[in-house]
Amino acid sequence: MALVQAWAAQTAHGKLEPFQYEPGPLGPEEVDIAVEYCGICHSDLSMLHNDWGITTYPFVPGHEAIGKVVALGEVAKEKGLTIGQRVGVGWNKSACLHCEHCLKGAYELCTTGKATIVGHHGAFANRVRSHWVWAVPIPAGVDAAAAGPLLCGGITVFAPLLDGHVLPTHKVGVFGIGGLGHMAIKFLKAWGCEITAFTSSNSKFEEARSFGATHTASSTDSEAMKKLAGSLDFIMITANATLDWDSIIALLKPGGKLHIVGAVLEPIPVRVMSLLAGKKSISSSPAGSRIQTDQMLQFAAQHNIAPMVEYFPMSRINEAMAHLEAGKARYRIVLKTDLN
Amino acid sequence: MALVQAWAAQTAHGKLEPFQYEPGPLGPEEVDIAVEYCGICHSDLSMLHNDWGITTYPFVPGHEAIGKVVALGEVAKEKGLTIGQRVGVGWNKSACLHCEHCLKGAYELCTTGKATIVGHHGAFANRVRSHWVWAVPIPAGVDAAAAGPLLCGGITVFAPLLDGHVLPTHKVGVFGIGGLGHMAIKFLKAWGCEITAFTSSNSKFEEARSFGATHTASSTDSEAMKKLAGSLDFIMITANATLDWDSIIALLKPGGKLHIVGAVLEPIPVRVMSLLAGKKSISSSPAGSRIQTDQMLQFAAQHNIAPMVEYFPMSRINEAMAHLEAGKARYRIVLKTDLN
Repeated sequence: MALVQAWAAQTAHGKLEPFQYEPGPLGPEEVDIAVEYCGICHSDLSMLHNDWGITTYPFVPGHEAIGKVVALGEVAKEKGLTIGQRVGVGWNKSACLHCEHCLKGAYELCTTGKATIVGHHGAFANRVRSHWVWAVPIPAGVDAAAAGPLLCGGITVFAPLLDGHVLPTHKVGVFGIGGLGHMAIKFLKAWGCEITAFTSSNSKFEEARSFGATHTASSTDSEAMKKLAGSLDFIMITANATLDWDSIIALLKPGGKLHIVGAVLEPIPVRVMSLLAGKKSISSSPAGSRIQTDQMLQFAAQHNIAPMVEYFPMSRINEAMAHLEAGKARYRIVLKTDLN
Repeated sequence: MALVQAWAAQTAHGKLEPFQYEPGPLGPEEVDIAVEYCGICHSDLSMLHNDWGITTYPFVPGHEAIGKVVALGEVAKEKGLTIGQRVGVGWNKSACLHCEHCLKGAYELCTTGKATIVGHHGAFANRVRSHWVWAVPIPAGVDAAAAGPLLCGGITVFAPLLDGHVLPTHKVGVFGIGGLGHMAIKFLKAWGCEITAFTSSNSKFEEARSFGATHTASSTDSEAMKKLAGSLDFIMITANATLDWDSIIALLKPGGKLHIVGAVLEPIPVRVMSLLAGKKSISSSPAGSRIQTDQMLQFAAQHNIAPMVEYFPMSRINEAMAHLEAGKARYRIVLKTDLN
């Protein structure tokens, strides 16, 4: 079996360098995918730096892969996938299919499910392998070259609209106009919502409106925040920053929901009394379920939604990672493979 | 118009003493109720002490009233209520009926709704007045003498089962076996759930089982808590205490919900990463909506559910309040009126 050609770091904060590994035999439920494109997610940086203490080295990042099926295990062959078909692989790479979460279709909550880049080599490579359930067919009408970021960032902001029962009649706030935030605004625009984009960078106001935001507001202007108190049904936090949580909770109407998809590391001090009288809630989530991922891709095709991306060849991976880390990505980076 | 005979405190922490006031003219949407029984809720103590900074004096506590309709305003007459009918009044005493929350039936979230004991005189009195929508008919099959605590404590633990989509197949944890907690266990037993009662008082284990708990556990035994990690779909916190929040969140299965009805005053330090991977949420709520209150009373009648109560005559109100404050109530106190 051919060695996989990849880019790996040998240590936390290390440079990504060419790395080869033997993928081992293909399991009956597994699929091998020839990577064409791979988005860079902020989680790739967090994992590279071992911010969450779960990284193993050599570490191959990459979990927003788009590519073509090149091999199917005996069982995977029977699951509607064909050689040459274009699929995507996101944060999750396996699911047991028989735990109580899988049996409900919540494969992303599988108790023994594996993540693409946790203890496994990711898709900054010419090949990536996944269980058939997480090799998601890319529908016609989705631009493959820009679709990578939908597989992790996109589904991460789309699934909460379903899980949180967001309706087109709702007024929604999005905090953070970055890789996730700009996709959230695009989805919410097509969802029919009135959207307020909150950012600490007033220079992003105009672009936020171009993505579909109805209003823009400065998240650091406490007077502006006060004026908007009690006006929102749903707030999505896509930033990793320390925010003024009390004033954000105060933005919610009674019955409103605060949903956090930014991996905020410091504890949020939640005052129960700020939730109690208005029946408010705080929730968080990683990516979505498989069916939600299919729905997201179909919705993107239907509404012509794609992330705004910048391209780098995979051989300029370190430059691309530095560009992301410097906060310069507008708004998501996609690597084009130049590995064979 | 006859003066209302009540018990009031003139200052924070003050004794409750006989107090008379002029109720003013009855509004067209209002109902006057002759109080027969009134439960004592922990919120009456918190308000008496001005713990929340919103108490006005003279302060008449009491918001778990059961009594008979003695006067109906012109509009209230047309809303299915009759003189002599037995009704209950809980935390809420008014609703505008025309704000966006009222128009959805969420009268408890009315933006201009008044609470029975906030800025108004409560039901430790011979009369209490409310808007017709919050004068809730007590169905046949509910014991009026024990029903008072259902109107605030009962609906506070019942509404989250509806709002939180708790199913009979769920495994549910209840923290705190007191006034609210023991009613939560009784409702959950009839709901069909497997219930684990958590308490710091192991002496309450046996009684918790008598209310319907399937299992009991010590909330202060970190080893016991660890063994139960990942086992619960829904947790209800009915205690006002400082708890080990990280280990409580860890008790939840993926997709699990932590719901807090105890008015915990110090901020809870919530780590987003403890919610994110498992799609967990934290929510809180006060009492329920009007229709939920009707459903709760019907469910109580159907399943023969009543709080365990101790009775005091209203003239021994200070003794009753001291009994509650000392943590000695088993499990809820009801005052019988001896005012005319």
